[in-house]
Amino acid sequence: MAKRSVTHATFIIERDYDATPERVFKAFEDTEAKRRWFVEGEGWIIEEYTADFRVGGFERSRFRFKEGPVMTNDTVYQEIAPNERIITAYTMTIDGAPISASLATIEFQKRGNGARLRFTEQGAYLDGHDDIAGREAGTRELFDALDRELKRAG
Amino acid sequence: MAKRSVTHATFIIERDYDATPERVFKAFEDTEAKRRWFVEGEGWIIEEYTADFRVGGFERSRFRFKEGPVMTNDTVYQEIAPNERIITAYTMTIDGAPISASLATIEFQKRGNGARLRFTEQGAYLDGHDDIAGREAGTRELFDALDRELKRAG
Repeated sequence: MAKRSVTHATFIIERDYDATPERVFKAFEDTEAKRRWFVEGEGWIIEEYTADFRVGGFERSRFRFKEGPVMTNDTVYQEIAPNERIITAYTMTIDGAPISASLATIEFQKRGNGARLRFTEQGAYLDGHDDIAGREAGTRELFDALDRELKRAG
Repeated sequence: MAKRSVTHATFIIERDYDATPERVFKAFEDTEAKRRWFVEGEGWIIEEYTADFRVGGFERSRFRFKEGPVMTNDTVYQEIAPNERIITAYTMTIDGAPISASLATIEFQKRGNGARLRFTEQGAYLDGHDDIAGREAGTRELFDALDRELKRAG
């Protein structure tokens, strides 16, 4: 068993989208849309994806990259203000081992004809899985995928 | 409706207890013990308290101080390593309005014949309910109550 450790850190990502806050929010609310940008991707094998978008509801993903280890993301919705903000808590595991627990705040603001998304992750990174720059980079890739989803849907 | 806002902040509390990490952990795990130190207190009316101490399980409290507004605390367990750490996500409401969502990490370490508890709250404080010093003070009072519980049980 790995020695237990917890590293706490916070990072913030801001992104401007060429879509209204309502459309960006919808890409989080709608299970089919969210699956496309949040879990699917070339080389990724999705073993499970279920969502229940309401306060107290869980979203569960189970996936791996090609022959890599199984990874999971269990998200629980903590606060939802339609078109304005979503707060989740999410945990991740790799190969059965917990690697992180995070509080994620997503705020949507109107900017001209589009929307600014502000994402704040307050995380507890476990047992040496404290590559916070890597987590931030992975999260930025998700918001790139969200941009593609909005362009596709637009 | 209040204007939406989110203030993010982190605070840390450390406490030394004259009890082993196993005994301190037990005071979180055991529903009857936790109810005594976490929700009961002079002047507090407990309308609901249920707990389900396992990863993904919820603990729900509904209470008020004398004739004050109803407050709720909904906690979901994110990570449990017996006798070593507990990570929860919890939300609070006052009079039906969400006031915060927090990630709380509780680490237990052996110190001599006792235990050090290290509590880290990473919080999102909502819509002007951003009295973080007050939240920290209230949390310190809970850890005073935990000390009384351990002395009672000891």
